[in-house]
Amino acid sequence: MQLTLDGDTVRAGNRARERFYDSRGYGHARGGDLELAPVEAAHLAYRGDIDGVDGMGVRELLGSGVVSAGDFVVYKDLRDRGFYLTPAREGWVGDPDGVDFVVYPRGQGPWDDDVAHRVRVVGERDALPAASLGDCALAVVDEESEITYLDTTRHTVGGSSDAAVPDTSGQLLSERVLCWNPPDVLYEQAFYGQRLDDDTVQLSLLEAAYLAREGTLTVERGEHSGDGADAVVARGREVEGERFDRRLTVYTALRESGVVPKTGFKFGADFRTYADVESAENLGHSELLVRALPASHAFEPRDLALDVRLAHGVRKTMVFAFVEGEGVEWVAVERLTP
Amino acid sequence: MQLTLDGDTVRAGNRARERFYDSRGYGHARGGDLELAPVEAAHLAYRGDIDGVDGMGVRELLGSGVVSAGDFVVYKDLRDRGFYLTPAREGWVGDPDGVDFVVYPRGQGPWDDDVAHRVRVVGERDALPAASLGDCALAVVDEESEITYLDTTRHTVGGSSDAAVPDTSGQLLSERVLCWNPPDVLYEQAFYGQRLDDDTVQLSLLEAAYLAREGTLTVERGEHSGDGADAVVARGREVEGERFDRRLTVYTALRESGVVPKTGFKFGADFRTYADVESAENLGHSELLVRALPASHAFEPRDLALDVRLAHGVRKTMVFAFVEGEGVEWVAVERLTP
Repeated sequence: MQLTLDGDTVRAGNRARERFYDSRGYGHARGGDLELAPVEAAHLAYRGDIDGVDGMGVRELLGSGVVSAGDFVVYKDLRDRGFYLTPAREGWVGDPDGVDFVVYPRGQGPWDDDVAHRVRVVGERDALPAASLGDCALAVVDEESEITYLDTTRHTVGGSSDAAVPDTSGQLLSERVLCWNPPDVLYEQAFYGQRLDDDTVQLSLLEAAYLAREGTLTVERGEHSGDGADAVVARGREVEGERFDRRLTVYTALRESGVVPKTGFKFGADFRTYADVESAENLGHSELLVRALPASHAFEPRDLALDVRLAHGVRKTMVFAFVEGEGVEWVAVERLTP
Repeated sequence: MQLTLDGDTVRAGNRARERFYDSRGYGHARGGDLELAPVEAAHLAYRGDIDGVDGMGVRELLGSGVVSAGDFVVYKDLRDRGFYLTPAREGWVGDPDGVDFVVYPRGQGPWDDDVAHRVRVVGERDALPAASLGDCALAVVDEESEITYLDTTRHTVGGSSDAAVPDTSGQLLSERVLCWNPPDVLYEQAFYGQRLDDDTVQLSLLEAAYLAREGTLTVERGEHSGDGADAVVARGREVEGERFDRRLTVYTALRESGVVPKTGFKFGADFRTYADVESAENLGHSELLVRALPASHAFEPRDLALDVRLAHGVRKTMVFAFVEGEGVEWVAVERLTP
């Protein structure tokens, strides 16, 4: 059976519709006939179910660029895993925006209403804008054509960490604030800073800036830039540039949601977070790794894969905080095995 | 006891030398007297062993910037771990270049010849030039003053993977080369590419460029840029820029050392490597994760921590390949617990 390419649609008749759509979920039924996306026709040709499209077999369809090799390997992989799926075209699926395939739960197909995954195909060298994440699964095709699936979802942060800290003071050094003999609750319950010893707590510039803005911390004039919250923020900007403001926005949003952020440095992230801190001595497992990025950020898929892989390895969820002005959008990214 | 600051050296007399150098390894003995670096004097003041330096206690020494807080927390941490260590000054230690402290094996001190670690103190916001790595341990002080120790060593790559591949041909697509019915050894023993199915192997552009340059692979003219090795390399440069050449240099160096590089995408690296491949079916554990970087690269310590942490989590060694022209320098970086 040779099918016909018409623009970007492969057209076939009633017999093909019965064989490929009705019984195996390929394409889109239009009246009694069948419309296929070229990638679907390539898969049928690859399997030997059709002879070709306008005389082209799978080699020619891929070689000519009519079908992208990335789309093809993902389509094939999902079929091999036992899924029916439909190319995300207007009129073919409910919400085609931002994805390439709509994948149905196993045992279901385009005749049913359920959707298991909305999948976007991404090459490992494609830029991934932050704004495009949050309601899709990425099928990242690496240079050896292996596929890594990453699920991206909107995330809500929240916790119950809300210990009140009495007023205290600290000494601003170049990249930290030292609190000599602060109230115990600062570290013990509210989990700010890190102990240098029993009498001394070191705060990061972020923690100090937040506490100083809250009015809890008085910052003594040090060698650097005067005193008060402004001095801490000024120092933060000196050493980190605008990244400091972005991280302070995310830090503040987390603290205000009852979540304690601590440095994520050991995990290569901005923060690890604890949702329900009762005491520093009796900490649970930190749940999230958070990376603060500008809302305009575009990922390299490899960086995304690195973050998600690491978070998975330490049993945490990778969450990206996309910052625009004072607003923060949270997107969780996790490995997916379809 | 008040000591005296003279330039960047704290001077003390014979009694101090006996108490602090002879019995506890602080400072450098000069004649009967003692010279201390300010960080050592700050530690003695912090412990209450001296009253101060020119009237300054530890708060003033840190607050005035005479002693860097990063140096202080690392010095204190290593002392807390039971080490004697000497600030790396000309005349005080054998090879002071590129490090801040020379740390002796436990139970030994500046009177002995052995060195356990050569330690450089790095703030998490400091740039780390590639050229400065390879013969030192980094003590990275993060924004909360926690310390991550990373050991950096020169590395030699080598393996026994040397299966010979008969000549074959492939079809150049936009980001891969498809080999239809290639010789089995291509994938099975030499472990090039990835199977699409029993009859088809997909090569990455890197693998194809290497094989084509070797004369093993003939590349058929596809939709892209003609045929031959040059066409593959040209295509690689189109999609990756100069990074493609850098990675091809590293790929070639690994293959020529008997090591099989495969994509490290799932680990966020350029390659994972297998030193002793006998067959693709019977692969051992891959030993290294390799990231190819220009020799002029400067790391953010956080990125380094991320790579090393991930590699550790998957029981591999993180190796950086610094490329200059056709030359490659290999540096392994691993977590260290002093």
